[in-house]
Amino acid sequence: MARTQGSHSDITGPRIQKVALQLFARHGYAAVSMRQIAKEVGVQVGALYNYLPDKQSLLFSLMNKHMQDVLAAWKEQKATLDPCRPDGLLEEFARFHIRFHMARPDAVFIAYMELRNLSPENFAKIEALRKSYEGELQSILDAGVAQRIFTLRDSKITTLAVIAMLNGVITWYRSGGRLSLEEVEATYWDMVRKAVTG
Amino acid sequence: MARTQGSHSDITGPRIQKVALQLFARHGYAAVSMRQIAKEVGVQVGALYNYLPDKQSLLFSLMNKHMQDVLAAWKEQKATLDPCRPDGLLEEFARFHIRFHMARPDAVFIAYMELRNLSPENFAKIEALRKSYEGELQSILDAGVAQRIFTLRDSKITTLAVIAMLNGVITWYRSGGRLSLEEVEATYWDMVRKAVTG
Repeated sequence: MARTQGSHSDITGPRIQKVALQLFARHGYAAVSMRQIAKEVGVQVGALYNYLPDKQSLLFSLMNKHMQDVLAAWKEQKATLDPCRPDGLLEEFARFHIRFHMARPDAVFIAYMELRNLSPENFAKIEALRKSYEGELQSILDAGVAQRIFTLRDSKITTLAVIAMLNGVITWYRSGGRLSLEEVEATYWDMVRKAVTG
Repeated sequence: MARTQGSHSDITGPRIQKVALQLFARHGYAAVSMRQIAKEVGVQVGALYNYLPDKQSLLFSLMNKHMQDVLAAWKEQKATLDPCRPDGLLEEFARFHIRFHMARPDAVFIAYMELRNLSPENFAKIEALRKSYEGELQSILDAGVAQRIFTLRDSKITTLAVIAMLNGVITWYRSGGRLSLEEVEATYWDMVRKAVTG
């Protein structure tokens, strides 16, 4: 019995996350009830509470996972790159950011649409992770300025501007459109490179 | 009586728009009821329907006004500029975009958060206005490319990237912070200029 329950919860836990992500992205966090999530997962609403205390922790868990994933994936990518070449790091950061987020439209959508629905403590935790990710880019820019490869007025603002610019792709790009993802990446990298040099 | 009603509705109409803008920005369109809006305005909910048929048309009216305003304001600004100097036009566009949107945080917030709550027909109308605004920037970029002042891979993507980058300011800038609005404008203009040249 314990065994069966164990294997059920291995499947049900991730399934709850997946269903909640889809429902929150489609209808908005405020409009989705725990009952709806339970129905879509195929369990009683009471069973849901074996996995998480409330809807707020479900939202936090989704946003937290998204931020932890992007940080971990970037650090893995960074480990393969020459740490003393800020231009190479910047190019990979730009391309990585586009590819990573493009593959997760629902998580990205929730990450900016539902920030206001986080409790203050949960917001602070997500905010800290976001700043840590921004810090990765800012340290590349600072290293490039120190090596006199990059010319920019303010590395903090440039960080925010570059991330905002790259995030823009995610809202308009559709695969099968006029341009391939590779062409889009190349175009954005061209703009980022020029914006921080010259 | 007709006179009195006339002057009342001159005040009440704009007041409904103002209250709805604030409430939608604070709580989200879906969470705000017509009853709540009426209460805040200080009228009976029935009276609200003298001004508009439903909540959807209120949302559309707010988003439509925002887009009409930005287009009109930009065209007014543009009329004072040399139409044959794409670099001057681009600088003014960048600075105008930051200033205009910075002064209207609630309208900006609604403009991207509540797009999904527009009916398909209303969405199409707002989308057309947005494309028209993007077209203003794209035609500046195209003119600069034709004059060999700008170097860029794709004027459509560059348009979207520049607007996304500029929109980013609005989410993080707080007056009284480390940088003045003038410094922020100058920093963004520096990045935009370099991104489309070099």
